[in-house]
Amino acid sequence: MTQKAKWKRKLILQGAASVFIRKGYNATTMQDIVEECGISRGGLYLYFDSTETIFYTLLMENSQSMELDFMHMMAESQSFREIMECFFDEQQAELFHAEQSMMTATYEFFLAHKSEQDKRFLQEQYDRSVTSLLRVLEYGVARNEVRFHDPEQIVRHIILSIEGIRIYTVSVGVSHNMIEGQIEMLKSLVMGFEHRFGMRGDSEC
Amino acid sequence: MTQKAKWKRKLILQGAASVFIRKGYNATTMQDIVEECGISRGGLYLYFDSTETIFYTLLMENSQSMELDFMHMMAESQSFREIMECFFDEQQAELFHAEQSMMTATYEFFLAHKSEQDKRFLQEQYDRSVTSLLRVLEYGVARNEVRFHDPEQIVRHIILSIEGIRIYTVSVGVSHNMIEGQIEMLKSLVMGFEHRFGMRGDSEC
Repeated sequence: MTQKAKWKRKLILQGAASVFIRKGYNATTMQDIVEECGISRGGLYLYFDSTETIFYTLLMENSQSMELDFMHMMAESQSFREIMECFFDEQQAELFHAEQSMMTATYEFFLAHKSEQDKRFLQEQYDRSVTSLLRVLEYGVARNEVRFHDPEQIVRHIILSIEGIRIYTVSVGVSHNMIEGQIEMLKSLVMGFEHRFGMRGDSEC
Repeated sequence: MTQKAKWKRKLILQGAASVFIRKGYNATTMQDIVEECGISRGGLYLYFDSTETIFYTLLMENSQSMELDFMHMMAESQSFREIMECFFDEQQAELFHAEQSMMTATYEFFLAHKSEQDKRFLQEQYDRSVTSLLRVLEYGVARNEVRFHDPEQIVRHIILSIEGIRIYTVSVGVSHNMIEGQIEMLKSLVMGFEHRFGMRGDSEC
């Protein structure tokens, strides 16, 4: 792909994300994305054949970006604690601004897609998050920063609890206070309860 | 309400639940419920004016039933540990048979209902679950069976994590093994990590 094509593809994905955030998954059409991006219909179809493909791509690139962040931070020998603080800070920021995220669209997508192929895709996304977060926990163990009885179970627990907070955030609506409390609790679970008394706010994400 | 009316109301709710489980929330009509229950249309409208009201009632009675179970078990002086085992066993059983529960319908309902009144209803349901589970934790503390740094945060964490497992169960699908692992983890959190070595399977739910 040429540099220009890459740039155009990125522009389309960003525009599409804005529409999905505003209108949800089901109500978004290719025409909406054409209008949002200010490109021609033919131009859009050169890159993506449907809103479904675009949505898939957005979900995939989102989870890849988390994976890449982790890999960079580990390559730079950042401490386990710093990496986890960054991860949880990002999750918290997303939950604080749920109305500006693709959460609602993602739930619509989740519920509408019941084919075996779609389930497999979602399963792969989930497994991928588990694997990349697990790698960070193992890194923390290798650095002697933490110990875990069953790290995989803890990772699954983190991902599932954040999902639970998400569904409540988009449906019922929860206070920032409560989100903070829950994120704090997950931090305690993964970093040990003494983390509250450790140095905070001095790490750079 | 006469005994016969109570019985008929219960029959309608049961029939409606079956339809919601089978067809989801959006696709269910009053006609479906008429057919399922084998009653007349007029007969149905004597009790409920819409599928929405029926759905509300089902959600409400479901959370009241949990509350009542807790109250009975506490009135009978069952141990905190027994009560929590029962609670988690029930949650696990529901997750194991997600296709026979109203989970998917509930998510549809959650996502479709965005009016302030509906949000308030969902909020109340959530607060109610928090309050009744919190009462059980306080009961455990009063009986000197457990101690908690922040019981309310733990209760919210339990409810939100179970919600997270639910959404994954109905969308991605998770193995019984993983559900068991996660429930085990929540048990550890609330009953202390030694619970695994305590007596199990000898309590009656």
